[in-house]
Amino acid sequence: MKLESFELGTKIGKEEYAEALPELRVALLNAQFDLRKAGFSVVLLLAGDDYQGVDELVDVLHEWLDARYIDTEVFLRPTDVERERPLFFRYWQALPPRGRVGIHVGGWAVGAVRAEVLDEGTPESRAQTLRHVSGFERGLVEDGTLLLKVWVHLSPKEHARRRKSGKRPAGAEDEEGSRWVWEQPAEALRAAEDFIEKTDTASAPWWIVEGTNDRHRNLTVARALLEALEGRLGSASEPESSAGLAVRLPPAPDVLGNVDLRAELSRKEYRSQLDDLQDRVRKLAIEARERRVATVLAFEGWDAAGKGGCIRRITRPLEARDYRVVPIAAPSELEQAHHYLWRFWRELPARGRIVVFDRSWYGRVLVERVEGLARDDEWLRAYEEIRDFEEQLTESGAALAKFWLHIDPDEQLRRFRAREQTPYKKYKITDEDYRNRDRWDDYAAAVNDMVARTSSDSAPWHVVAANDKRHARLRVLEETCNALESALARA
Amino acid sequence: MKLESFELGTKIGKEEYAEALPELRVALLNAQFDLRKAGFSVVLLLAGDDYQGVDELVDVLHEWLDARYIDTEVFLRPTDVERERPLFFRYWQALPPRGRVGIHVGGWAVGAVRAEVLDEGTPESRAQTLRHVSGFERGLVEDGTLLLKVWVHLSPKEHARRRKSGKRPAGAEDEEGSRWVWEQPAEALRAAEDFIEKTDTASAPWWIVEGTNDRHRNLTVARALLEALEGRLGSASEPESSAGLAVRLPPAPDVLGNVDLRAELSRKEYRSQLDDLQDRVRKLAIEARERRVATVLAFEGWDAAGKGGCIRRITRPLEARDYRVVPIAAPSELEQAHHYLWRFWRELPARGRIVVFDRSWYGRVLVERVEGLARDDEWLRAYEEIRDFEEQLTESGAALAKFWLHIDPDEQLRRFRAREQTPYKKYKITDEDYRNRDRWDDYAAAVNDMVARTSSDSAPWHVVAANDKRHARLRVLEETCNALESALARA
Repeated sequence: MKLESFELGTKIGKEEYAEALPELRVALLNAQFDLRKAGFSVVLLLAGDDYQGVDELVDVLHEWLDARYIDTEVFLRPTDVERERPLFFRYWQALPPRGRVGIHVGGWAVGAVRAEVLDEGTPESRAQTLRHVSGFERGLVEDGTLLLKVWVHLSPKEHARRRKSGKRPAGAEDEEGSRWVWEQPAEALRAAEDFIEKTDTASAPWWIVEGTNDRHRNLTVARALLEALEGRLGSASEPESSAGLAVRLPPAPDVLGNVDLRAELSRKEYRSQLDDLQDRVRKLAIEARERRVATVLAFEGWDAAGKGGCIRRITRPLEARDYRVVPIAAPSELEQAHHYLWRFWRELPARGRIVVFDRSWYGRVLVERVEGLARDDEWLRAYEEIRDFEEQLTESGAALAKFWLHIDPDEQLRRFRAREQTPYKKYKITDEDYRNRDRWDDYAAAVNDMVARTSSDSAPWHVVAANDKRHARLRVLEETCNALESALARA
Repeated sequence: MKLESFELGTKIGKEEYAEALPELRVALLNAQFDLRKAGFSVVLLLAGDDYQGVDELVDVLHEWLDARYIDTEVFLRPTDVERERPLFFRYWQALPPRGRVGIHVGGWAVGAVRAEVLDEGTPESRAQTLRHVSGFERGLVEDGTLLLKVWVHLSPKEHARRRKSGKRPAGAEDEEGSRWVWEQPAEALRAAEDFIEKTDTASAPWWIVEGTNDRHRNLTVARALLEALEGRLGSASEPESSAGLAVRLPPAPDVLGNVDLRAELSRKEYRSQLDDLQDRVRKLAIEARERRVATVLAFEGWDAAGKGGCIRRITRPLEARDYRVVPIAAPSELEQAHHYLWRFWRELPARGRIVVFDRSWYGRVLVERVEGLARDDEWLRAYEEIRDFEEQLTESGAALAKFWLHIDPDEQLRRFRAREQTPYKKYKITDEDYRNRDRWDDYAAAVNDMVARTSSDSAPWHVVAANDKRHARLRVLEETCNALESALARA
């Protein structure tokens, strides 16, 4: 998961904040009161690259909740007692009993990320720790604990601004505090992303919260806690099996809402750039063939967003033997008789080849989710499955880029109408296309979740403004070149 | 898991075999026929250090099942198509559709173990592969696949015998066949144990089958397959969620049944050895204190098996400040409000100290399982949780030994009666002790499972014949010394 996708600069004003607080605080206290008689505990792991923000958040939560029923533990330098025992001793000690809230500040998350940044131990020992983290979290969840993991994030720009301001945040002097972030911000963010990606599961997903605006941060976390608590209190307190526990996906940033759809390009500008980019694609494809680097491009987007046109602009400069376009429709009977990823594995390119997927494995978290073709537990765990699938692809050396072509509903309607007027495009429009428009908001939410939970450095999502087709095509060509270049650089 | 615990030399005679076959084969065919209309697939992963045994087994299964509905794939040297793609491409390709049985010979298991033995790739890449194995297996199970993993094992003695016989087994010449086992049997077994331990989960447990007697091997695997298939066919074919799938624990070898309880020691012999061993314990404890190595001893056993007496023989030569005995009874209210492992984490010794648990975390898979105090899914996953817990202990450098003191029911009754005659021991006997005797067989099965699934090199179980108390005490002292010595050697 890219922390970057959560950098939206959301701000909440003083008034809005003051207005929201009274009700929120009463609800929190009520939920906490009900928790005391419920058969489960709450563990809130508060971590982040914004050390000071985490610190302030803890104070706020202590103020808003009934502090008598909170067990807070700030994990700084291990004590003598802790150093004498296995690493997880301290985390076990700090676990709250059923009925109480435990706030773990830093905890196993910051410990593991810091070890990576400071190169503590060996790669093997750190891999072991990661396995123990998974086991620990799974154990808690299976035991009925409501585990919430919050990462408070600041953009690199905000980190730089604070560093320049000369005002060192609390803990910046301290090796166990935030010195590792203060001194190596880029490494810290990379290690954090890696850790978050490897520990983000369907039953214990990470909530990434931007820390730039403290009111936004406080409200977001408190509301998340409240919602999760109320959701859990509302369900059976003694589930038949641990898998029965409802899991809610943390809210994703509104990536689509933040796309600037006004981008436009003149025909002339387009022509000249198109030639250059297609030339670049051709050369890179030849190099990839020679150096045996596979390429996978996945296209998703609204109906009529122009996927086909983009794909044609990419394949035109390629040699026919080098690429294959795989259109993905509803699965065949044989495909339905397999795991949903099976048909995509089958289509993976050999080294040196290019496969372009026109729609992809993301159908699982888009159409299958929205149309109820997959159960909640199925699409919820798909993020992790897809990350693992793509990781195997890129570990094997392949270039991978994923595109969401974004248009607005008005533009879509215009295109539908235009297609109906064009004889050779008429077949492209069906009643279903119109029906899908009714679920625009559901699809938008699914796209936001998808982008937030499956973007990574080696498998990035490109959300492309596509109201202007020329702009979209160039952007797609450019990112395809970038993907190829970075895979070739790694090869 | 120690492969050694499965080396029992079980043999099945020709007649017994011939008698069992007809019914078994009809049942297999019927189950396979029903599978065709069921909504799930079966994947049978057949691997092992007995390459030839696996080979023969595949032939037998093809004969006994309807081969038209089996997809068998023998994973030898990757083909060109496979080498061009990520490692798991071949395993995905070979997955059967719902309604069919897929037999994966070697598969991801042998691939990973061989990579470890031959030092292929880097430790990091092998750790990655292990993560992908977990993801792959979990994905299959969550998708509804009935995943059965069988490891056919030969004892080192049998391996040596076959090597000496000069008759190279099939595949021994071939790097992708069994050359890695043939040439490095000790490394192969160690790597296999490690892999099995790390991939043995509650939803996809490993079935270890001894390959020495081919009739025993064939019957065991065929019966396991049949039982699993029938169990699954009998349950709802479309489960609400993947966690609803019934999982059966593979049968464990009858370790208790194979203990020779006749071992006896004269008082004189006992005296002299006791002094020596206690002297050794004292010296090792001093060295452990100085070199800051922690020690954990866990005692389990039948009621009246003599745990207390053994513990006293160990603690007597120790200095009071160095050790602590922790008696484990029913959990307190606070302990019950936590994860069951919580109270054991709290009691872990500091470096250089010794903690002796009189009963332990194994209560989860013993009394809680047998008395129904834990749900099936709870105690089933406990094996993995306990292995992770003990791994963290030994990774931190601690010495760990676990004892099951074994007596037979007659001896227990004699001791109960004797206690009732002895005023100061009378308090030790309650009605509950008598009630527990009624469930002797259930407890014995639980002990066999426990020993099979939680023994490892660094955390071995010692099943001690305890009808003769003197013999038991010396054996416990000796294994305690061994545990300390091996931890000190690693320190």
